[in-house]
Amino acid sequence: MQSSLAVALGDPAGIGPEIVAKAWDYGHDGTLAPFFAVGDARALQAVWSGPVQRIADPREAARVYPEALPLISVEDAGEIRPGQPDLEGARCSLDSLELAVGLTRSGAAAGLVTAPVSKAQLYAVGFTHPGQTEFIAERCGIARENAVMMLVGPGLKVVPITTHVPLARVAELLTVEMIVSSALTTARGVQRSFGIESPRLAFAGFNPHAGESGAIGREEIDIVEPALAILRAEGLDVSGPFAADTLFHPRARALYDVAMCLYHDQALIPLKTLYFDEGVNMTLGLPVVRTAPDHGTAFAIAGQNRAEPGAMIAALRLAAQAASARHERAQG
Amino acid sequence: MQSSLAVALGDPAGIGPEIVAKAWDYGHDGTLAPFFAVGDARALQAVWSGPVQRIADPREAARVYPEALPLISVEDAGEIRPGQPDLEGARCSLDSLELAVGLTRSGAAAGLVTAPVSKAQLYAVGFTHPGQTEFIAERCGIARENAVMMLVGPGLKVVPITTHVPLARVAELLTVEMIVSSALTTARGVQRSFGIESPRLAFAGFNPHAGESGAIGREEIDIVEPALAILRAEGLDVSGPFAADTLFHPRARALYDVAMCLYHDQALIPLKTLYFDEGVNMTLGLPVVRTAPDHGTAFAIAGQNRAEPGAMIAALRLAAQAASARHERAQG
Repeated sequence: MQSSLAVALGDPAGIGPEIVAKAWDYGHDGTLAPFFAVGDARALQAVWSGPVQRIADPREAARVYPEALPLISVEDAGEIRPGQPDLEGARCSLDSLELAVGLTRSGAAAGLVTAPVSKAQLYAVGFTHPGQTEFIAERCGIARENAVMMLVGPGLKVVPITTHVPLARVAELLTVEMIVSSALTTARGVQRSFGIESPRLAFAGFNPHAGESGAIGREEIDIVEPALAILRAEGLDVSGPFAADTLFHPRARALYDVAMCLYHDQALIPLKTLYFDEGVNMTLGLPVVRTAPDHGTAFAIAGQNRAEPGAMIAALRLAAQAASARHERAQG
Repeated sequence: MQSSLAVALGDPAGIGPEIVAKAWDYGHDGTLAPFFAVGDARALQAVWSGPVQRIADPREAARVYPEALPLISVEDAGEIRPGQPDLEGARCSLDSLELAVGLTRSGAAAGLVTAPVSKAQLYAVGFTHPGQTEFIAERCGIARENAVMMLVGPGLKVVPITTHVPLARVAELLTVEMIVSSALTTARGVQRSFGIESPRLAFAGFNPHAGESGAIGREEIDIVEPALAILRAEGLDVSGPFAADTLFHPRARALYDVAMCLYHDQALIPLKTLYFDEGVNMTLGLPVVRTAPDHGTAFAIAGQNRAEPGAMIAALRLAAQAASARHERAQG
């Protein structure tokens, strides 16, 4: 039997516990593969009246799941007040993450799904990683620059090759090596997690109209095209650089598996324009499956029963599919 | 009686004549308000077997329109070969544009719609403007920096405040004055052409997450926010800067009339992702109405009866609506 997914509950004062509980409501009849929560049971009970059952071993999760939300307890949150984050809650979210990563890394969980944390709160308790992804990569023994963020919607997968850096610095930060490395990780990750043997990667240009042969900027000629030449020589199915504004309408999307984008908003604008409530953040390049809903803690609406679980449900579904695909490859 | 729209046929070897002819097929039963073509009749006849009737005066257009496509003839194209542009065709497209602008400027036409030209061909015959828009602005006595390009789809209007410049240069080119000036022109243009008394302008940020209060870039703080303060003091309804990736999903779009974007692809990615085949380019800040389909000459498919007239039809419809709105304001 395959193991269950581990879901770190994130900040106990955010919407994480609520969307995990709602995902169980939605999925425990078998619609979603079994998962268990890792965190403080009180964070769930503060926002949800459904059944929670503590388990000591992830192997119990699949048996419990049809009847109650299985939980591996992490009890260092202080008083829990939805919408009012504090440092004890931040510590609890970090401990939950660490335990969930460990269970996944050891094979006790089939994959890892993370609910939102508050970076500001985490930094205040001494967290030194930029975000959960880098922490998870380190715990998996992977250099953070080799973990690639892919955003996934029902009809679009995008990889932002640079992420949270000022837009004016992107041109100087982009290198041929960075593009090659991201593309290799992406191709391998999509192969493993989606079972697509030779993923088609389409690259966006950097400038308007992809630079018009150098008339409106040279990044396409100086950086992107040399990277594509290397990737072609490696046997990857790559195309572009294309004018970014022509890359995301339905006919264009039919021609590739992943759009490789050069900066954050080039990837995130089309993804969130099309799939605002169902975007999933998937980390490629790790030895484990990891997904997360592509939204934040939303403290402003926490505890009001207003949080939409769509992205969490999509993250659980995608993690289960990826875990299956990896399992089959490992067996096959 | 209101006058008809003037449609410059664009490059005779491009898809302009075909989409204008198809728009007449679609609209001459009254579905579209009357328009007349300005260009070489042979360019139409090379790709279309419908009726063309030459007129000498734009006032004849409305009477002719139900029976035939009215045409004011410009006859300097040489031999016409769809898909094979040449310099005589470029000269013809320029002469057609110039005549159509003049007729609109004089009030003989209600508004101007332009089919695509080839910039490369125009430059080769000595055209010194970056594109048709700047040429039209100059002929209307407007400085090119005061003509604002707005892209319009059925559920989204966007203004790229900078346009065809390398992305790495945008941060140094953006100024408070440029943003204020574009916004004032946009607000006035939307008021005149759409009859929206106090248009809501939502501004995108420049950096990922709109800079996160300066943590990921300072353009929001140093340039956008001061511009918004000035615009608010002028009485405009402005909001932002918002994280650009959260600005274009349906719930967000319901909250503004125009998204003001800081660079080309920030505006064009969402517009073309949602409305690839129906985007209209509308020029604001001119004394006349001017629209154009938001695509190029498509020489590769010219003459094969494969061109989709959707964007030209949308451009005609929008020009007619804007001309009506202006007419009513002038009367009211």
